[in-house]
Amino acid sequence: MEYKISDRLKNVQGSAIREIFDLLKKGDIISFAGGMPSTPTLPSKQIDEILQSLVSKHGVIECLQYESTQGKAALMEQLKKFLLEYKGINAETQEMIVLSGGQQGIEFMCKTFVNKGDVVLVENPTYLSTLQIIETYEGKAVGVDSNNEGLDLADLEKKITEHKAKFLYVVPTFCNPTGGTYSPENRQKIVEITAKHGVMILEDDPYSEIRFEGAAVPSVKCFDKTGNVVYLASFSKIIAPSLRIAVAVANPAVIGRFIIAKQSTDVCCASISQLVAAEFIKNGLSEHLKNIIPIYKEKRDKMIECIEKYFPKSFVYQVPQGGMFVWGYFNDNRDLLAIFKEVVDLGVAFLPGVHFYPAGGNKNTMRLNFSNATLEQIEKGIGILGGHLLQY
Amino acid sequence: MEYKISDRLKNVQGSAIREIFDLLKKGDIISFAGGMPSTPTLPSKQIDEILQSLVSKHGVIECLQYESTQGKAALMEQLKKFLLEYKGINAETQEMIVLSGGQQGIEFMCKTFVNKGDVVLVENPTYLSTLQIIETYEGKAVGVDSNNEGLDLADLEKKITEHKAKFLYVVPTFCNPTGGTYSPENRQKIVEITAKHGVMILEDDPYSEIRFEGAAVPSVKCFDKTGNVVYLASFSKIIAPSLRIAVAVANPAVIGRFIIAKQSTDVCCASISQLVAAEFIKNGLSEHLKNIIPIYKEKRDKMIECIEKYFPKSFVYQVPQGGMFVWGYFNDNRDLLAIFKEVVDLGVAFLPGVHFYPAGGNKNTMRLNFSNATLEQIEKGIGILGGHLLQY
Repeated sequence: MEYKISDRLKNVQGSAIREIFDLLKKGDIISFAGGMPSTPTLPSKQIDEILQSLVSKHGVIECLQYESTQGKAALMEQLKKFLLEYKGINAETQEMIVLSGGQQGIEFMCKTFVNKGDVVLVENPTYLSTLQIIETYEGKAVGVDSNNEGLDLADLEKKITEHKAKFLYVVPTFCNPTGGTYSPENRQKIVEITAKHGVMILEDDPYSEIRFEGAAVPSVKCFDKTGNVVYLASFSKIIAPSLRIAVAVANPAVIGRFIIAKQSTDVCCASISQLVAAEFIKNGLSEHLKNIIPIYKEKRDKMIECIEKYFPKSFVYQVPQGGMFVWGYFNDNRDLLAIFKEVVDLGVAFLPGVHFYPAGGNKNTMRLNFSNATLEQIEKGIGILGGHLLQY
Repeated sequence: MEYKISDRLKNVQGSAIREIFDLLKKGDIISFAGGMPSTPTLPSKQIDEILQSLVSKHGVIECLQYESTQGKAALMEQLKKFLLEYKGINAETQEMIVLSGGQQGIEFMCKTFVNKGDVVLVENPTYLSTLQIIETYEGKAVGVDSNNEGLDLADLEKKITEHKAKFLYVVPTFCNPTGGTYSPENRQKIVEITAKHGVMILEDDPYSEIRFEGAAVPSVKCFDKTGNVVYLASFSKIIAPSLRIAVAVANPAVIGRFIIAKQSTDVCCASISQLVAAEFIKNGLSEHLKNIIPIYKEKRDKMIECIEKYFPKSFVYQVPQGGMFVWGYFNDNRDLLAIFKEVVDLGVAFLPGVHFYPAGGNKNTMRLNFSNATLEQIEKGIGILGGHLLQY
């Protein structure tokens, strides 16, 4: 049988992150490659407790029968409170849909708005899976320059006009991969410029609760006056990835399309996951965040300390105020993609930055995840990586 | 903000079933409309027991961390045994992917193979959500005639040639909506004809364990010699819909594409659901099926009895040997779509058959689900429906 793969998929490769993750899971490798939360910080005790009484408390229909595509009422109620308290977003029920992870929101956004050949603007660099999703919808990702304050507004407006862009994808708080955070002024301007041109924004916000220092910044969605911002919050990093629970907030007309998209794929989110998330948000989340933030801060500090100690001085990076990643580049012409396999053979993995650029290149960049490794692994792994980098 | 919806979604309406389901869930309506399993038969006691020891038994990584996109090893092991024992399919690990419900398999099949304008052949009538999914990929569903033995093979070959069809979608056992089952000879011929023309088959098999009488029939996949059959089994009807767990079996080249498709949407299935399914398949499924089959048989029998008692004699139908649906038509020119709302006002819902035809029409057809209502509701609801139908 000769498989005639569709145009949208025939040239798409698997996600570099997912393949590395499958590879590393069983191995004895210190990984700074993925974006996994720290395993010991995952709230297994609390979730175990929730599971003990889940069926007796919620009953057979709520736990086991088909569920509304939009999401469980019990979870939506908690999501409203969560969005208001943590994100400053006041969402009505008809403005929300529960998703099987934040990624599903990126997928639905492309499905709803991207025709073949359409341009999606992204920060340059951006989350690599978003680049892949855009590709599966035969769209084209175009990078917008950024600086310490956020997106370069002149470049944003130029590229909106030049490409008649359909939407702009941003991770404005503790960005994946750069760790950067856009200023409130930059956010407001981004919303104004896109709204003026009738361009949508997809704001992906999975990390903002993991803040170590500095004042919280309002969501891009908070500046939305015309309904052009679709907002995504996820519980993969702040409760547990395995629940596959996230939420999108948008104008009801957009949510209606997302509901149709969800009817066509997984019909509804797994009920046990929805109920666990609802109970955890209600009773455990604020305490849990208080516990995990210092742990992640300690890891961030350890990684910075080790970079200073072991890396060549030509490595340029910013200290992220939160999130899970340190991003940097060498101000010489190193090819970090070329050394990736050598480093894995030494027992350490990172992500070459090239994967995060819509146009590729930038081989001198790298992303280092600090959330999953232990302090000892960070010391050892950054030591090995630094030692190898110093040989060049 | 004017939302510029993509070509693929702009004309797609929500699923009639899902909207009716949302409507009926809170109401006091006797519903023969959906395809929900009987709530009291859902194994809440057994799943409650599994949840009690889930975290302590499997540990934090297995329960809460990111999981492989292809599926959990513990579940894949049980799926292999299940597929061999219940479906006669011998699947290797690289031939399988765990899905968030069978619907996701239909979605991935379209994503992987359907370009804009491509034809997908379907039984006429067929599962309505499949029609919607094909539409979201800008494909065109074309119906193949069928008879008591299965598909009309001459019509199948004619339409393959005429339309250069990409794949054929079939629900060959206790078909949704017709309840019919293809003969083994018909299955073999379907595989031979499609393989000869290089056309794929998507075999959707969520109902085959729910058999009341007659001998089991081998899966279409069992006749596959060239790798052109993609097979879907689901646990929504035989364990619980809310788990959102199904499995696809196909050539590793196809599974590789499905993995890429899944990376781009929900990344992996919810772990708690996967572990519950694994334990239930291992320890509870065969006993559970023994318990539920007589209950569903009794409901089927009751519905047939009531149709005979209350319906006009012009209603033509076949008694299904299993599954969840009775399908029929009136051999006069009734418009059942027109009376749908009147009947809902009387407190009863069914599904007008028009929704199941790719080309619409056939307004004299209806699908009646017998799995979800109680025996008393079947008596009362079919009585009301029959009484209304007799007035015409």
